[in-house]
Parts: sequence; structure tokens; C-alpha cells
Amino acid sequence: MNIGVFDSGFGGLTVLRALLERLPAADYIYMGDTARLPYGAKSQATVVRYAVSSARFLVERQQADYLVIACNTASALALDAIRESVPVPVVGVIDTGANAAHAATKTADVLVMATAATVESHAYSAACGKRGLRVIEKASPLLVPLVEEGWIEHPVTEEVLRIYISELLDEVGTAGLDPDTLVLGCTHYPLLRANFERALPPSIRVIDSAEVTAAQVAAALCLPQEACGPDGTQHSRRFYATDSVAKFRRLGSRFLGEPINGVELIDLGG
Amino acid sequence: MNIGVFDSGFGGLTVLRALLERLPAADYIYMGDTARLPYGAKSQATVVRYAVSSARFLVERQQADYLVIACNTASALALDAIRESVPVPVVGVIDTGANAAHAATKTADVLVMATAATVESHAYSAACGKRGLRVIEKASPLLVPLVEEGWIEHPVTEEVLRIYISELLDEVGTAGLDPDTLVLGCTHYPLLRANFERALPPSIRVIDSAEVTAAQVAAALCLPQEACGPDGTQHSRRFYATDSVAKFRRLGSRFLGEPINGVELIDLGG
Repeated sequence: MNIGVFDSGFGGLTVLRALLERLPAADYIYMGDTARLPYGAKSQATVVRYAVSSARFLVERQQADYLVIACNTASALALDAIRESVPVPVVGVIDTGANAAHAATKTADVLVMATAATVESHAYSAACGKRGLRVIEKASPLLVPLVEEGWIEHPVTEEVLRIYISELLDEVGTAGLDPDTLVLGCTHYPLLRANFERALPPSIRVIDSAEVTAAQVAAALCLPQEACGPDGTQHSRRFYATDSVAKFRRLGSRFLGEPINGVELIDLGG
Repeated sequence: MNIGVFDSGFGGLTVLRALLERLPAADYIYMGDTARLPYGAKSQATVVRYAVSSARFLVERQQADYLVIACNTASALALDAIRESVPVPVVGVIDTGANAAHAATKTADVLVMATAATVESHAYSAACGKRGLRVIEKASPLLVPLVEEGWIEHPVTEEVLRIYISELLDEVGTAGLDPDTLVLGCTHYPLLRANFERALPPSIRVIDSAEVTAAQVAAALCLPQEACGPDGTQHSRRFYATDSVAKFRRLGSRFLGEPINGVELIDLGG
């Protein structure tokens, strides 16, 4: 089983990390479209074009037979277009996050924090709305650069998160909602999970969309739990990037939680 | 006279703004390669490819007869490649910044704050070194997202700038330098000029590379000072972007300091 994992950059490695824990018995091909990141600030037409070419690379040239779109922006703006362009199952992080929020909430009121583009797409509102949930979304554009700067346990990050969450809770009060669940709607945010838990009221539970995506893929695929094949060979992990492999190795290791070797540079044009 | 101004995004509008003040009697074509921004985190090969296609668009399709590369990353990594690819004069913000630092400093010790990619290219060190200056460069990756979030007069921005400048001054102490000049090596930073001036010791003077680029272009071109031609018609300003024109209008106005109308979407492929 070849599982293709796609993101605009490194963040999707948090999803791959969770998949490796749950489904060690698959082969993985990770592709980060690092020459064209971030998708988060781009228009739908541009994101569709980029994401479809990346999905095709994974399926047509790398023989992926299952695709995980580990990029919130691509899941929000391009999931239907990707499904139409490749003949394999395609799972996006927004539906899995909405499923998990639906399973977790008792009050049916849910919060989502994400990048500006994900919030502007209102994809989480739509996905949660279909499941009967009320949602307030909050754009938090500074969190990705703070994670990439490595300022995880850092007073500036605590203060930025405090400001964003306080603005979000003001909106909650105005809307008269009673949320008990907050979805981390960006693959960078799992690295700030402890910060979120400290900054939120204890009554609000954090849903890590990387973790719940891995759980849902694992449930759908029913693979064995062994990391090695019957002949004792380790399953493979291949990494592709459209820009600097050195940076991919350096930054990516932080997201994957282990060293990354053998990243291959590919050219999708553009 | 058609002056083409190129940046990966909106930041170069601070250079256009300074040019409009100094040289109102030119026609301007501004191009922001917003579908492929930011260049700051990409490899030289990718930046060269993107910047050359943008420069060609301005010269071959828009008849620019003078090019200002208002993007530090493209000036650092792609200036020679651009000069080889178009038959018009090309000015980059790094040489103009180094010229201005050379003219301003009495101690010959200069500081530069910029994005990670500009710093890693050491283009300012090379340009200042040629002029006999000693330089310490400091990457400040959080300042661009803070400006784009609109947190200009904001305690978080003051604190981030305080941290960066304190780290920089520690390096200055270790190196035994006596700097009296700091170059703002990113076109977003002019919006934080007052913050920089508050955070720095009063003995260090701030050089705004947008302003000094405009001054040097004005000196080179010797155009009249009138904003209207001899027949009373206003000189033209055209704006092109490779992604969402709505976002360009909204964010760009903050950098240009006046409303932007009539942005045209173009496709350079990729």
C-alpha cells in the first residue's frame, strides 16, 4: 500500500508523523510543494492548479494508491478538483477534523483556528455545519511564522496566542455560543498544542487535525501494525520537494520528529 | 519614460511610493508576483526563474525602459540574471542600500536587518564589503507577517523588535564593532521605521532602502518634477499581480499610502 501525503510545505509532516505511528505497515511518499508555498494567501484558482499538479505527481508518477491531503488550504479549496483528477481515494484534513469535532462535542458549538485563507474559505464552517454544529472560525496568521522561527515555548508566542484566543472568546460571548471543542485547523499548530491547552479555558478540548486524520485513515485502511513486511524489509518513506531540499531536511525534521534523509528535488513547472 | 517596478508582492510598493514622490513625471508599471511569493524562503534557482520571467514581462510586454528591482531577495539572488535577460538598465535595492550606508556611516560599521533568505545570501555583506564597510546582518523573519497582520503600533511587534535588536547588539559587542547605521533590508520594514528608531540606540541612524533607492533612481534619470505632461495629462500607474487582485488592492494600499485601483491579473505560468 502506497500512501501519498501532500502538503504545500513541511506542516503536513505532522500528519505523516501521526500516520507512521498508526499505520507503520504502509509505504509513504511525501510531497511538499515548497517552491510555491504558502498556499494560504493565494486564490482558489491558483491553489487548485498547484494542488492538482502535485496530486497527479503522487498518483501518476509515484504510484500512490491512496492520497492524504495534509494541507488545510488545499483541502478547503481544491479537494473536489483533486478527486476529479486522480483515480484513487482522496482524504482531506478538513472533513476528518469536522468528523472528530462532531464526535467530541457535547454542546455542538465548535471553534476553529486556522490560517487566513482557510478561514476565508469557510470550509470548516461548511463541513461542521453539515454535521449540525455551530462554528466560529478565527484567523491566526502569526502562528505559522512563529513555529517556523522555532519560538514554541516563548513568551511572544504565548502573548500572540493569548490575544487571538481572547478575541475569539469575545466573539463567542457576542454570539452566545457554548463551545467545548477547538479544532487546530493548520498542520503547523500541533507543535503548539501544549500552548493552546494552556491558553484555553479547561472546558475546551483541543482537536489535533493531524492526529484525527491519521486515526480515520487507519480505520479506513485496516493494515497490519508491523513496521516491517513479512520478509523483514522496512517499509519505505520517500520525500519530494519542489524547492531547497536542505531547508526541507532542516525544518522538516522538527515537524516529523525524526531526521529526514534523502529528499529529492522535483520540478512541476512554474 | 516607463519605469517598471518589480517585487514578489506588495512590499515593493514602498519603493514605488518613494519614487512617485521624487519622480512624479514618469509612467509606472508595478508588478507583484503574488502567486509565487514569498521569494524569501526559496532557493536561488527558483528565485532566478521567477524574477527573470517577471522582468521580461515588464520589459517585453509592458515596454518598461528602466527596471527597479524592489525586492531584496530578487536583488540578492537574481540581479545578474535579470541584467542578462533584458536590454534596459536594472537597479536593485541592495546596491542602493549599500551606497547609502557608505555615504552615511562615519565608523564604517553597518548593521542590516532583513528576511532569512536575504541574510543567508550575504548580499548586503558583499555589497557593503566592496565599499570598505564591515557589516553584521540579522534575520528577522517575524517582521513581515507582523506588518501584514497590521500590528504596526503594537506591543508584540515592539517586543519582537526588541528581541531581534538585542540579539544583534550582542553580536556587535562580541565582534567589537561600532556601528552608527542600520539598513532596513526588506521593503516591508519602512512601515516599521518609527518602531526601529524607538528600539535602537540614538547613535544608530536608520537607512530606509525604499527611500534611498528612489533618491538614486531620481539622480540617475533627471526627469522634470511635474506630475503632469506638457499637455496636462496625468502620468500613468499600472498595477499587475499574478494572484488575487482583491488582496493586492486591500494590502497594497497600506504600502503605497493611497488607494489602488485597476490591478490586472496576469498569468506567467507555474
